[in-house]
Amino acid sequence: MPTVDLEYPKQPYSKVNRYDSRASYALETIHGIVNTCPIVHVSFTVPNSPFPTILPMIGQMGSFARPSADTGDVLELYLHGYVSSRIINMSRSANGESSGQEEGLPICVAASHVDGLVLALTPNSHSYNYRSAVLFGHATLVTDVDEKLYAMELITNGVVRDRYRHTRVPPNAAEMQSTSVLRVRISAGSAKVRSGMPNDDRADKEDEALLDRVWTGVVPMHYTMGEPLPGPYNRLEEAPKYIKEFRDDFNRDSKDVATEAATKPMKAAKAKHDD
Amino acid sequence: MPTVDLEYPKQPYSKVNRYDSRASYALETIHGIVNTCPIVHVSFTVPNSPFPTILPMIGQMGSFARPSADTGDVLELYLHGYVSSRIINMSRSANGESSGQEEGLPICVAASHVDGLVLALTPNSHSYNYRSAVLFGHATLVTDVDEKLYAMELITNGVVRDRYRHTRVPPNAAEMQSTSVLRVRISAGSAKVRSGMPNDDRADKEDEALLDRVWTGVVPMHYTMGEPLPGPYNRLEEAPKYIKEFRDDFNRDSKDVATEAATKPMKAAKAKHDD
Repeated sequence: MPTVDLEYPKQPYSKVNRYDSRASYALETIHGIVNTCPIVHVSFTVPNSPFPTILPMIGQMGSFARPSADTGDVLELYLHGYVSSRIINMSRSANGESSGQEEGLPICVAASHVDGLVLALTPNSHSYNYRSAVLFGHATLVTDVDEKLYAMELITNGVVRDRYRHTRVPPNAAEMQSTSVLRVRISAGSAKVRSGMPNDDRADKEDEALLDRVWTGVVPMHYTMGEPLPGPYNRLEEAPKYIKEFRDDFNRDSKDVATEAATKPMKAAKAKHDD
Repeated sequence: MPTVDLEYPKQPYSKVNRYDSRASYALETIHGIVNTCPIVHVSFTVPNSPFPTILPMIGQMGSFARPSADTGDVLELYLHGYVSSRIINMSRSANGESSGQEEGLPICVAASHVDGLVLALTPNSHSYNYRSAVLFGHATLVTDVDEKLYAMELITNGVVRDRYRHTRVPPNAAEMQSTSVLRVRISAGSAKVRSGMPNDDRADKEDEALLDRVWTGVVPMHYTMGEPLPGPYNRLEEAPKYIKEFRDDFNRDSKDVATEAATKPMKAAKAKHDD
């Protein structure tokens, strides 16, 4: 844990304009959201296409230089997943040599948790409880073997705690060759969090007939992991302890976070509407 | 249901290059994924910013012209959520008048479900079971009052089935004024689906010591909705039947989809690696 609470600089492209009472620029908050999302969404622009594109990928924040760094430290984002050859090729060629610009492919990464459905008296005041983070940075291909191994372990254990060392490692030469990992150097980021119960306009909250008729509150929502289902060539009689404990912890934490999000008040409830 | 299975045209920017055996261009598949996601991620480019940006938003596919249209029909995407003034202003001004280009702001929309963790013998063969969809299109502001009301009902009932008519409706003038809805005319789209058990390389599947040591299989993963928690000004003794039934159906369906994704084989299992 760093001795001060670090924040990302507010940039014109990263500043939260709407409901800024819900915004945070704290590295700890933003990195925590990213590292607990099973997938992140990565956006980049494509030459000769009228549209930007989005890829779902797996991402974890880490530091190859200081592997013991905490969530609130300065970290880089490692990306892996269904990496189209396009993003890999673009990251490889975006080395900035020709232009003198910052090295790498400019990307935006979003990580979002839905924590509950907020049911109010009017459609406009309906909302979600959620935690969302956005990061902006430059992606480059990881070419150093040791850094690639670090990132592969980080990402595998980000999906299932402690999984990496329980599999056949290290990856062989063919696997190292065929696997691409991107490292994103972060320029800025922000988080937005909504928690708590519905909040309607005063006129509606004073409408007796309406209050007698409409149920208001929160339906908590969270990811659940089911019973591990053995595959066709599995030989172990049951899933090992580290998988079971990971699953149990995940399910308990997920449920707790969603329930707490419903019942705890917003830190700064300046926002009036929830549309 | 249309009498033929409609597909989106394959465009250079929408074609799935990697694992194309997992790809689909069917409207029914793509729209089904979008309409069951609690949130979608919307990407667009921002003038004078080095990075594209992503907003989490609420989206539902529908047809104002033919409200009875099915999931597999030609539909438009209606977006609502934490709409930054930036995307609204850009959509308002992107009317194509000056340039002769297609009307609206070019955006990319991603909708992704995680259905399970696929645990293989090697880190490289690990994967998720998932269903993801990407749509490309042009966003414009909905200005017609009737269409806006149609979209508000569509989106509200997309979050909780049948919720709209159980709240205080229609929205009043101030609410209509303050609410922005975007309509996206879709140019192309694609879906990518992975299901089934892990599939390792032959050399690993013939490694007896490895098979005796590593658990392989799928941990199904899905969203769950908890018990509805009443808010501070709720007066109803318990959540009404339509909310309870919606929650029960959602939880049963979510669990079934994740379990089926784990146990059913891929339609076309051409892909060898799962990295």
